[in-house]
Order: sequence, then structure tokens, then C-alpha cells
Amino acid sequence: MAKTEHSEVHRTEPAVNKRREIADVAAELFDALGYHSTSMDGIAERAGLRKPTLYHYFRSKDEILFEIHSGMIESILGLHDQRLESGVNSIEALRGLMEDVINLMENHPGHLRIFLEHHRELPDRYKEEIRAQRDKFRQNIVSALEQGVEEGVFRDVDVEMTALAILGMCNWTYQWLRPGSGRSAAEVADAFWDFAMNGVALQPNLARP
Amino acid sequence: MAKTEHSEVHRTEPAVNKRREIADVAAELFDALGYHSTSMDGIAERAGLRKPTLYHYFRSKDEILFEIHSGMIESILGLHDQRLESGVNSIEALRGLMEDVINLMENHPGHLRIFLEHHRELPDRYKEEIRAQRDKFRQNIVSALEQGVEEGVFRDVDVEMTALAILGMCNWTYQWLRPGSGRSAAEVADAFWDFAMNGVALQPNLARP
Repeated sequence: MAKTEHSEVHRTEPAVNKRREIADVAAELFDALGYHSTSMDGIAERAGLRKPTLYHYFRSKDEILFEIHSGMIESILGLHDQRLESGVNSIEALRGLMEDVINLMENHPGHLRIFLEHHRELPDRYKEEIRAQRDKFRQNIVSALEQGVEEGVFRDVDVEMTALAILGMCNWTYQWLRPGSGRSAAEVADAFWDFAMNGVALQPNLARP
Repeated sequence: MAKTEHSEVHRTEPAVNKRREIADVAAELFDALGYHSTSMDGIAERAGLRKPTLYHYFRSKDEILFEIHSGMIESILGLHDQRLESGVNSIEALRGLMEDVINLMENHPGHLRIFLEHHRELPDRYKEEIRAQRDKFRQNIVSALEQGVEEGVFRDVDVEMTALAILGMCNWTYQWLRPGSGRSAAEVADAFWDFAMNGVALQPNLARP
């Protein structure tokens, strides 16, 4: 039994890591060239693999696309699960969720573009699974806002619309934030936090047209 | 001379309208099926045109893609130019810019997705032109924020980051706002305006982790 477990781990872990490594390489190529313009040949070459070896890990480009999607969403959902287990308050929860997205631009360059723009190219059997996980992420933002209203630190805002606004501003960083160019993810998170918390108006309710 | 002008107008205006009509049809198809999965045949069929007639208006799918891009950005840049000419204050300017984007979801369904996701597929000769116009739109938001700081109605925020946050939350509506489903564009604009002006925190500067 112990032997089986060990050999299972021995066989699986490097394979899982290799799949992630290939997904990282593919995400960068998809980001640079476009999903449709990137071939399995190109991915094999960039990953330093022979084509049969690439097909050993992924049967198709679709499957790499799914690996990019599931790897990314599982990793950021996992970060928040840990946060919730440690009993964070609403401020820490919301700030953490915003940072998780913005940090992707430094930790997983290219992945967020693929995740956001190529959901529709996923095979149908994968689409629903990823959609449910995306919904869960948005719901985490809604929950952090509701918690803040209960804790008396947030205004009684329209939590659904506010969550979509926050999600949008953070996701949108994939369009303009690149590692090593201009602002760091931490600086963007600071500026976005200030905006989300305090808004632009100098005095509340003054600035309504 | 008068005759020439007249025949010029006579020849051009319907052609321009027809091109826009085809671009509208194509944008809906691109939105539903994806840009790469939509053929010139499919566009001709949906537009009720024979294929040679379609090619009379557009030499390629690329050109339709450019028409969608340029038609959309020119129309919303034009709206703001009119606003500036009439001498609006910063509140009216910023609110107008946010509404211009959100209203696209009702006025030009499908166009914003194409505009945002398929910029890279534009032929190189068109890319720079569209990029310059996109930059101008973002700069309009920056200018409205700067004007508000000068007028004493906005806080002295990081205008570049705040403009990107506002642009992101408004653009992101293309991912979830559909005509006739749930909230209207006007309701979304109201909720987003409240968020952008007043933020989420009940008291300024309270909510910093």
C-alpha cells in the first residue's frame, strides 16, 4: 500500500509539474501570437520537447487551454480559501481578492488574457466547470462586501454591481499592466484600493450630476 | 460642380450606411460564433447579400474588423468632443464618458467585445490608428479627473491609475451586460457612478489594511 502510494506520487507529481510548465510556455505563446496562430509544433519547440512527448502530456491544444484556465482559477480560489480559513475581516478579504487578480500579471504573465478572452474556445465539457469557478470568484467579492456592510466598515452598496465594478477594474489590468513596465502590481493594488475604498469625490454625495 | 457634389453624396452616403449595416451584422456574428469561426459566406448570408456584393463593400474580413473598430471608437470620441465643445464641467464630462462605454452594450451589442478582444487581428496598417484613438479615449478620462481636481470637486487622486480603473470597470461590462437581461445600461451607470464617486468605505481612510 505504501509502495503504491509512493509510486503514484512519484509518477504523478513530475507529470503535474511538467503539464504546468508546458501550460506556462503555451500561455506566453498564446499571449504573444494569439491562440489561433499558435500551433502544437510551436509549443513543443518553445518547451524544448519533441512533439510525441508534448502529446504524451496533452492530447490537443484545447487541453492546454483548459489547463491554463483551471490552473489559474484554482490557484486564486485556493488563495482565498486559505484566507477565509484563517478568519479574515472584510477589509483583508476584499484587499486580498483584488491583489490576487492584479498579482497574476506578475506571477502568470499571459494567463489572464487567455483566461478572459478564450473561454469560448474551451470544449463544451470544460466550459461549465470553468464558468462555475469564475462565478465562485465573483461571489467571493460579493461576500467580502456583504461582510463589510455587516461589520459596519462598508457603505450599504449594491453589492452585485460593486463586485462587477471591482472585478472589472482588476481584470482589466491584463490589457495594460506588464511585468517590468511602469507600475508594479503592488503599486497598482494600492491605487486601486484607494479608489475602491474612497472614490473620487472630495465630499460624499456632492458629485452627482 | 453642383452636379458632381450631388452625385458624390448620392454615391457615398448609401455606401457608408451599407458598410455600417454590414459591420453591425458581422459584429453580432463575431460575438456569437467568434471572429475566426465566422466566414465571409456567413456574413453575406446573414446580411442578405450575394457574396460579390459583400466584396464590393469590403475586400476582406480584416476590413470589416477595422470598420467595427473605427466606427465604434469614432462614434464615442465624437460624443465627447460635442460635450467638450458645449463646455461641460468635470462631473458631466466623467459621467458622460462612463455612460458612453456602458451604453455601447445596448446601442452596439457585440461591437465592444470585437473592439477589445480582436485588436491584435487588425492588419498592421490599421493597428496604430485604432491604438491612438483608444489612447485618446483614456486621455479624455484623465482630463476629466484633472479638471475635477482643479474645480475642487475631486480628490487629488492618481489620475492615470484612476482612469484605468474607471475604464476597466466600464469596458468590463461587455463580459456580463446584455440588452434585455437584468440591469439596464442606465442602472449600471448609476451604480458605477456611485462606486466611482463615493467608494465602498463608510468613512474615508478608515478602511486601509
